[in-house]
Amino acid sequence: MLAAARRIDGLALRTPVLEISPGLFFKLELLQHSGSFKVRGAFNRILSAGEPLADGVIAASGGNHGLAVAYAARELGVRAEIFVPEVTSPVKVAGIEALGAHITQTGAIYAEAAEAAAKRAAETGALTVHAYDQPEVIAGQGTTGLEIVEQTGGVDTVVVAVGGGGFAAGVTLGTAAVSSVSGTGPRIVAVEPEQIPTLRAALQAGRPVPVEVSGVGADALGASKIGGLAFEILSGPRVESALVTDEAIVAARRTLWQRHRIAAEPAGAAAYAALLSGVYTPSPGERVAVVVCGSNTDPATLAA
Amino acid sequence: MLAAARRIDGLALRTPVLEISPGLFFKLELLQHSGSFKVRGAFNRILSAGEPLADGVIAASGGNHGLAVAYAARELGVRAEIFVPEVTSPVKVAGIEALGAHITQTGAIYAEAAEAAAKRAAETGALTVHAYDQPEVIAGQGTTGLEIVEQTGGVDTVVVAVGGGGFAAGVTLGTAAVSSVSGTGPRIVAVEPEQIPTLRAALQAGRPVPVEVSGVGADALGASKIGGLAFEILSGPRVESALVTDEAIVAARRTLWQRHRIAAEPAGAAAYAALLSGVYTPSPGERVAVVVCGSNTDPATLAA
Ligand SMILES: Cc1ncc(COP(=O)(O)O)c(C=O)c1O
Ligand SMILES: Cc1ncc(COP(=O)(O)O)c(C=O)c1O
Repeated sequence: MLAAARRIDGLALRTPVLEISPGLFFKLELLQHSGSFKVRGAFNRILSAGEPLADGVIAASGGNHGLAVAYAARELGVRAEIFVPEVTSPVKVAGIEALGAHITQTGAIYAEAAEAAAKRAAETGALTVHAYDQPEVIAGQGTTGLEIVEQTGGVDTVVVAVGGGGFAAGVTLGTAAVSSVSGTGPRIVAVEPEQIPTLRAALQAGRPVPVEVSGVGADALGASKIGGLAFEILSGPRVESALVTDEAIVAARRTLWQRHRIAAEPAGAAAYAALLSGVYTPSPGERVAVVVCGSNTDPATLAA
Repeated sequence: MLAAARRIDGLALRTPVLEISPGLFFKLELLQHSGSFKVRGAFNRILSAGEPLADGVIAASGGNHGLAVAYAARELGVRAEIFVPEVTSPVKVAGIEALGAHITQTGAIYAEAAEAAAKRAAETGALTVHAYDQPEVIAGQGTTGLEIVEQTGGVDTVVVAVGGGGFAAGVTLGTAAVSSVSGTGPRIVAVEPEQIPTLRAALQAGRPVPVEVSGVGADALGASKIGGLAFEILSGPRVESALVTDEAIVAARRTLWQRHRIAAEPAGAAAYAALLSGVYTPSPGERVAVVVCGSNTDPATLAA
């Protein structure tokens, strides 16, 4: 985790933390390059490869990971090929193209785009940058957790959104890595849309199992199955699973804009939705960090 | 200045700073309560009055000061009456109403609304909270400057927008107040739209003189004349005047959104416009803080 932090230092931003009321912190990861935390994992994976990368990099993505890989590849002077499904929003498709990556839109959901990308990678020999289930990706995302501890001086709880689970897994490890007693760390509230409960389903089944994918978060939290590595980490004792409705996500997004002038996409508002809707209620005096993690959205929809 | 900081502590937010590239900092004052720094001065003025304020408070404003006074009054349980001109954007009018203040829209520009407010204040006995030309207001805004020095560890230059000049004057004092050598402090680049050059005109005339008001910044930077107190401070040796075109403001606003996912109103992007358009070019190694100071805008116009 600390190695990842050193590796991506100066490439990914140290995003700011805002204490919105006493003991309630927003980690403004939506201000990250490419509009989400995903560049952290992308940079760490690509830089860890230690290869000349003559065949470029390849990734499948709901959109944000594609933006991040395209951004990182451009910064590092490497070619990038990105596969996204039909559900990916026009804002994200346009952004990936603007970053100079080659984009292919195929399949209804992320899992289908991922299959196409895997096939293509086998042909081209490009380095795959997985959206959530590679150790270097998880470690990269986890640097967000390191920063949360450093910037807040420590919290009791971190509330974070889950798609394939790489982000929450990284934050679980990252917050522990800098906690004073080794192996401990804050409670992690892992938030998913009710309509895409990959972690909840896996916790109930005892192993990753596929779920249906739909709803407002589908173009960012739309993995069909929790990642295997992520599940190992997120089934630990520090992690609590929470589900939010699409209505709660939409309401949280509206509040973030109207009250705080923070322009989040639905997935970026999911963690805050758990608090606002009362799905997770902090105890008096509990110090809580909410990760606001994505902003790749059409701003015209913010005030809706 | 330090007294103002203590007075408004816990009421105004300590807004975050983002180091966007080595040595270039954004002070994200647009995430402040009510969407601009103006609550700092409003809280400080109202709390300094030390009266029961049975007659409430009254203010004239292009919009953001009205939002701020309405917000502060609501938080402190005081009635507020706000006068805004016709140029004030619908987003701001609706926001002031939503905060429970009584609003009157009258006059073409700020100066005319201010006249109406002054007349009304004489009738009602309400406490006037001036938009820029009261010492308590300037001291409140100046707490932004204190925070910039603390949060960045010190900068060489602060770039800040000027309307009536209260904000820039406060930042000039605030940054000096915490500088190690008393009386010194960073260079202040005071940025105005070419179409509303209140400070530039005053510097040339040797005293505050009226200017025409027009352009994209008119609903926030639309004072007709620099404040007398502000002019005293901004005519000092640490301050450098800079003018930006409306096109540069619009371009900076677009870049803030597209590259950084920061949703600023035109006035909020004016300071950054001075850098992006090359009107102010930092030397190599110069540490610069750009104040992004307002976000009361229709988000649908961000991507335009
Ligand atoms: C904004 C945003 N939040 C959260 C997530 C979930 O991350 P993960 O798939 O690692 O769980 C994603 C994934 O794309 C995302 O884009
Ligand atoms: C967003 C914003 N920036 C800058 C200013 C300028 O402040 P001042 O009038 O104190 O110069 C204002 C004033 O309303 C504002 O609303």
